[in-house]
Amino acid sequence: MTKFESKIKTIEWIDNYSKLVDQTKFPHKYEYVKITTGDEMFDAIKTMIVRGAPAIGIAGAHGIVLYAQELQNQNLSKQEFVNELLKKSDYIESARPTAVNLHWAVEKQKSIIKNPNLDIEQIVEQLRINGKKLELEDIEINKRIGDYGAMVVPKGATILTHCNAGALATVGYGTALGVVRSAFANDPTIQVFADETRPRQQGARITTLELTMDGIPTTLITDGMCSYFMKKGMIDMVVVGADRIASNGDAANKIGTYTVAIAAKYHNIPFYVAAPLSTIDTNIKSGDEIIIEERSHDEVTTINGERICAEGVNIINPGFDVTPNELITGIITEVGILKPDYKTSIAKAFENK
Amino acid sequence: MTKFESKIKTIEWIDNYSKLVDQTKFPHKYEYVKITTGDEMFDAIKTMIVRGAPAIGIAGAHGIVLYAQELQNQNLSKQEFVNELLKKSDYIESARPTAVNLHWAVEKQKSIIKNPNLDIEQIVEQLRINGKKLELEDIEINKRIGDYGAMVVPKGATILTHCNAGALATVGYGTALGVVRSAFANDPTIQVFADETRPRQQGARITTLELTMDGIPTTLITDGMCSYFMKKGMIDMVVVGADRIASNGDAANKIGTYTVAIAAKYHNIPFYVAAPLSTIDTNIKSGDEIIIEERSHDEVTTINGERICAEGVNIINPGFDVTPNELITGIITEVGILKPDYKTSIAKAFENK
Repeated sequence: MTKFESKIKTIEWIDNYSKLVDQTKFPHKYEYVKITTGDEMFDAIKTMIVRGAPAIGIAGAHGIVLYAQELQNQNLSKQEFVNELLKKSDYIESARPTAVNLHWAVEKQKSIIKNPNLDIEQIVEQLRINGKKLELEDIEINKRIGDYGAMVVPKGATILTHCNAGALATVGYGTALGVVRSAFANDPTIQVFADETRPRQQGARITTLELTMDGIPTTLITDGMCSYFMKKGMIDMVVVGADRIASNGDAANKIGTYTVAIAAKYHNIPFYVAAPLSTIDTNIKSGDEIIIEERSHDEVTTINGERICAEGVNIINPGFDVTPNELITGIITEVGILKPDYKTSIAKAFENK
Repeated sequence: MTKFESKIKTIEWIDNYSKLVDQTKFPHKYEYVKITTGDEMFDAIKTMIVRGAPAIGIAGAHGIVLYAQELQNQNLSKQEFVNELLKKSDYIESARPTAVNLHWAVEKQKSIIKNPNLDIEQIVEQLRINGKKLELEDIEINKRIGDYGAMVVPKGATILTHCNAGALATVGYGTALGVVRSAFANDPTIQVFADETRPRQQGARITTLELTMDGIPTTLITDGMCSYFMKKGMIDMVVVGADRIASNGDAANKIGTYTVAIAAKYHNIPFYVAAPLSTIDTNIKSGDEIIIEERSHDEVTTINGERICAEGVNIINPGFDVTPNELITGIITEVGILKPDYKTSIAKAFENK
């Protein structure tokens, strides 16, 4: 396994509280907040102090531990304790209802809460242990993704990425940027081109921050520039994350990813998606079944508090797009790199899981 | 010729002064400034109160008239007047040295200044007449481009454009947006999708403003979104302007245009370039010979005065890219739509000129 140690720890359980990087202050400040109550964690998820589906999942698991610690001091019967804590678990899940990983992590904790063989003290202890375990597993999975991905990164490569699929979207290593970190650990001549990623600019605000903190050379470009640099031979490969992958390999990711994939195809540049198996939704046959979230129009019309366009203009703001499998060179997972045809390789990966 | 009357007049000579739209205040204010001296015009060009290559050319021609009016009142000999005015002409050309149209317009005025058969009063009068003539010719050429282009716009089409090749980049009708205006005059179900066009956001700040002022329905999208809407069947054609076209049809335009052209090709959507013949540089064989201007890094790192990325990140900011002729469906000019192979069709257009 890779020796690269990232400076970034997005979320970390310490003794009896959860320590988060406050992502609302990027790129101007990199500060930690100490979350000591369940309600504080609910707010942290809701207000996007923590963001990125895997990181949100762990935040939810930690939040339930915090609620459990509070209820433990209230002299409740076991039944009252369990009922109250299940209610709090549902509440914390409601902070970001669309994040699949939050649902997944809350369910993991609920199965401990519902265990009839544990007393209150044991439940709290088991929740704490499991919260930490999920946290550490996320990093392990990312590192495995990173190490598999590094095997297809050419020596001295410049890797283009879109949005932020990094340490700051996960517990501390990243999926697409996990591949970058693992490659960089063996070859310090690796560098990254980061798309700004309008409208929310996660590439500019988050990816440039976490990569420069880890000493990985990073160039910020605007979204329209990718083809210019590809034509000049300055991009060797593209690696992006994914929010949801269909069983035929079609991959939903941040809006603009599909445009980069088309440009890569036109220039014969490999285009990889890096994501854990938990991102693959085997219940859907193709990307056509993925519902695309329409987001606030202000994200397009307003930057840093100032309107950038005329009044009376129409806005459509899809948060994601779907890259069809024919544009994807490989899907880098914790069990290896899946290759076309994806219907077969994905099915096989789940069989062996 | 089209009956569409735009509300926009970017630059207009009135009696003894030049009236400009102040483009530094977009999209918040649409205001005129009265330019009454040559030095004021120099500053207006330099500080981008007026922008867009064709508009800058006319501004230069008007600026020379303003200097001539001033020198006329200084009791100079004919020789002194001519020498002084030629110096002022070179000075105004230096305001934006890379704008080809400024050089072209200044040369036109210089040939009047150097005419030995004219006295001072006649020179001033001829400069004024010629300044107005160039201004009106620009609109006529744009309208011819618009009318030819409108012939290939399908009924009810949604037209995607990038940057601003509109009334506000010319005297008052536009090249790419001239095509939109001519099409809209005959078919009010036409609508426009405007790319934001990072880094300088001319699509958001200028294109949305001039189209909504003229009552043409406009949707603003971020640069990465184009493929998403193309795949959904929501874009029927792309029309963009050009800054310089090689004799094989390769076209330099605002950075990001090439990415849109690749996406259009992938979705089998027609991609047109609209530009006057004066944009075609018959001295260069292909786009490889076009030198791309590297612009200020602040344009990428900072929006509305606030930094959007980490310190220590690298920036490359090419102002333009080159779309290869194989991606261009047609070049819409004032003498008709040129089609591949462009080497032949461009040569023919210049023969008949």
